[in-house]
Amino acid sequence: MGKEKVQRVRPQLLKGFRDYSPSEQIAREAMLGKVRSAVELMGFLPLQTASLEFAETLLGPHYSSDSLAELFGFLGPDEINMALRYEFTVSLARYVANQPDLALPFRRYQYGNVWRVDKPGPGRYREFMQFDIDIVGTQNLLADAEIIAAMVSIMESLGVADFEVRYSNRKLLNGILDWAGIPADRGPEVLRVLDKFQKIGQFAVLEELGGGRVDVSGDKIPGIGLPDSQIKKIQGFLTQVFSAEYDLSDWLKSVRDKFAKIDEGLSELEEIGKLLTAMKIDRSKAGPDLLIVRGLGYYTGTVFETYLTKLRNFGSVISGGRYDNLVERFINKPCPGVGTSIGVDRLLAALLELKALDLTTSTSKVIVTTMDRDRIGDYLSILRELREAGIPAEIYSGDTKNLTKQIKYADKVGIPYAVIAGSEEFEAGQVTVKNLVAGRIKGSETADRESWLAAEGIQETISRSQLIQYFKSRLH
Amino acid sequence: MGKEKVQRVRPQLLKGFRDYSPSEQIAREAMLGKVRSAVELMGFLPLQTASLEFAETLLGPHYSSDSLAELFGFLGPDEINMALRYEFTVSLARYVANQPDLALPFRRYQYGNVWRVDKPGPGRYREFMQFDIDIVGTQNLLADAEIIAAMVSIMESLGVADFEVRYSNRKLLNGILDWAGIPADRGPEVLRVLDKFQKIGQFAVLEELGGGRVDVSGDKIPGIGLPDSQIKKIQGFLTQVFSAEYDLSDWLKSVRDKFAKIDEGLSELEEIGKLLTAMKIDRSKAGPDLLIVRGLGYYTGTVFETYLTKLRNFGSVISGGRYDNLVERFINKPCPGVGTSIGVDRLLAALLELKALDLTTSTSKVIVTTMDRDRIGDYLSILRELREAGIPAEIYSGDTKNLTKQIKYADKVGIPYAVIAGSEEFEAGQVTVKNLVAGRIKGSETADRESWLAAEGIQETISRSQLIQYFKSRLH
Repeated sequence: MGKEKVQRVRPQLLKGFRDYSPSEQIAREAMLGKVRSAVELMGFLPLQTASLEFAETLLGPHYSSDSLAELFGFLGPDEINMALRYEFTVSLARYVANQPDLALPFRRYQYGNVWRVDKPGPGRYREFMQFDIDIVGTQNLLADAEIIAAMVSIMESLGVADFEVRYSNRKLLNGILDWAGIPADRGPEVLRVLDKFQKIGQFAVLEELGGGRVDVSGDKIPGIGLPDSQIKKIQGFLTQVFSAEYDLSDWLKSVRDKFAKIDEGLSELEEIGKLLTAMKIDRSKAGPDLLIVRGLGYYTGTVFETYLTKLRNFGSVISGGRYDNLVERFINKPCPGVGTSIGVDRLLAALLELKALDLTTSTSKVIVTTMDRDRIGDYLSILRELREAGIPAEIYSGDTKNLTKQIKYADKVGIPYAVIAGSEEFEAGQVTVKNLVAGRIKGSETADRESWLAAEGIQETISRSQLIQYFKSRLH
Repeated sequence: MGKEKVQRVRPQLLKGFRDYSPSEQIAREAMLGKVRSAVELMGFLPLQTASLEFAETLLGPHYSSDSLAELFGFLGPDEINMALRYEFTVSLARYVANQPDLALPFRRYQYGNVWRVDKPGPGRYREFMQFDIDIVGTQNLLADAEIIAAMVSIMESLGVADFEVRYSNRKLLNGILDWAGIPADRGPEVLRVLDKFQKIGQFAVLEELGGGRVDVSGDKIPGIGLPDSQIKKIQGFLTQVFSAEYDLSDWLKSVRDKFAKIDEGLSELEEIGKLLTAMKIDRSKAGPDLLIVRGLGYYTGTVFETYLTKLRNFGSVISGGRYDNLVERFINKPCPGVGTSIGVDRLLAALLELKALDLTTSTSKVIVTTMDRDRIGDYLSILRELREAGIPAEIYSGDTKNLTKQIKYADKVGIPYAVIAGSEEFEAGQVTVKNLVAGRIKGSETADRESWLAAEGIQETISRSQLIQYFKSRLH
């Protein structure tokens, strides 16, 4: 009989996409669980919005086909332009605009995937997870302080000690631009350059404000061409330090008196500082930093970022700010809000690097091996008793009776214990328990393996009736 | 000054898409948490695959533009045809095909959204959540039994008592078709009609196998035009009942002896029955039902469905089966598997209807009101102490000092307790606690509200130093 020719499909992932293997996903779920507990303790409510939205919801009424293509946008059913969400804040605003009866302020969290057609690279994906918290419907700076407190609490709940939440205020920054004589329409590009301060340093920032520069790789980075007089003033600001909150430099005191916006920004920073102190938040973990800009155009007040002091190269892992106009894309009603966003995958990579999370590869703690198929009833009884005792367990359900292969499977998955028994053991009322973790670590170092296994308790024969108690005492 | 005309965007959702409000999302997370615990206790490992895949991964090498459009498929970056996943099994097969070193059998679970361009309707969405468990890389029927055991365990972990897992076997069904003389290429359409048995009954099924019928609304449902002789034989099968597992009808015994495929299917059903009995699974919760078909073409052995006996109209809430050829779309290596899929949103709707899950609207148990802004430090101390005691709490962070409005907010969100205090109370070392739930239920029935509040303990003044203990004793 002739065999049909099968045309196979290459089992590949799209560029910029990835799977999360069990060990990665176990770590991710553990991290998300801690973050969710931390924000639920603060009364944030879960919301889940649709993944696909009208293109105009995400991009505003006058989007271009280019900007749509950056979002995984396409012409969908009913000839409607739609796109996968690239962040949550616009969808939150759409939800709030649609819920006239919503209790405000609305404290919500949302986590899930977002999609962007960025250039993929190491650690940069086109599908990635964000975890956002926001308080919408209030101008009260207590909300800004609560978001900062949440950022601190999230990091602490994840067992990270070495971090800093840093915040500034867009009003202050905009006031500085006014004071420097920079026209309002050039503000966004100047802020975009200032935003690079952490990464490229003062000197390079000043060059990019002017004629541009050549970076280390020899690439030409164009400048935005500000006149020297304006650059000089910005330079004056960049040398200010705001570390002593209630002890401003003479320079800041003098510009504050002259520019209402700068005064307003500084006053808000001072108010937030007082609230954080009253919250008994360790101020070394959450303090002002005038050079925090945040790129996104929609921020109007407080802005914040979070750095891991031992992994500064990871950049900010939790960032956000106050946006007072976002709901107005949809309805003619002011609805100010403030929120922050965790780059889940970046933070997860950092936690793994800091060894703040374990990489576990198995959920089962025990595997019941099945070398004697006639004893399946006995194996299934052990399995049931283990699970009833709350001990995650599985039975070997593959196609081989070979015990060595079954143990090899368990070892590969990372299951710490194996139960082994044949008819002889069952008739003697006994079973053998093998500690695969200890066996894996030390097994190869020893010459007389069998006697060593027994001596080290890596393999022991115990009474069947004691089996569940044996695991309970070791695994809880 | 002239006001700029703002062009607003209508805050709408795409057809077939929805948001999950906090109360819905709290219930969904609670349900998912229980299901995850149940399957992790059985050693299933979490996997998360990409949401977007190559079109050919999802649809095979020879897909049409029509079938791509049914999947939210589009021409994406780099001119590649891609689509949102419409289920998880194909992505699982792609993952397994790509991981030659994966330990088999691979016991994995995956949950998340899937997308289909179905006609939206009540309870039918184009984005919905599935929760799948599968055991891949084994032909051992123990794996089929473990999946059925998982289905039982999931339902029990959700607090549902009235359910039935029903299973059959495709080999048996295919054998019956052979026996009835139906050519192999007509098998899928016959199975598709038989699959309607639960919904439309025997008589309508027989009509659809033949010349068609007219349904209650007067619509003509075309038949598939089998000859009468074949329909008669199918009718013989449809009248069989397989409730007494080890006591086959004479009819089944006689066809079994004549057709190897029927014998194989029946033997597998009997083997699974023995395993489930050895697992001490309540057989009234998991038994054979020869009329379970499952529509999907890729099933090759065991198939199963789960019904809520008090809500049969919800249809099957957890369904699946054995598929022995799926990985072969990608690689020339047999990799049989068996798995099941929970329709998360349908099951959630059922649980809410059965009152097996609470609809909670708040995460906070206590709100600290802020009527006197000079006392913000005192309010923040109470807030911190509550959270440190593990009591989910928030501080009112909206824009009003008005206490009534603050209480109205808390009431709307569903926060059960409010702490109220002004300078006078703080100076006397006291605070007032208001029980908003009791107040909401009974408050309106009483004439003399103030005295009633005190008498019922709905509002009481207690010592500031006793406050945390007061909540601990009520909320844990």
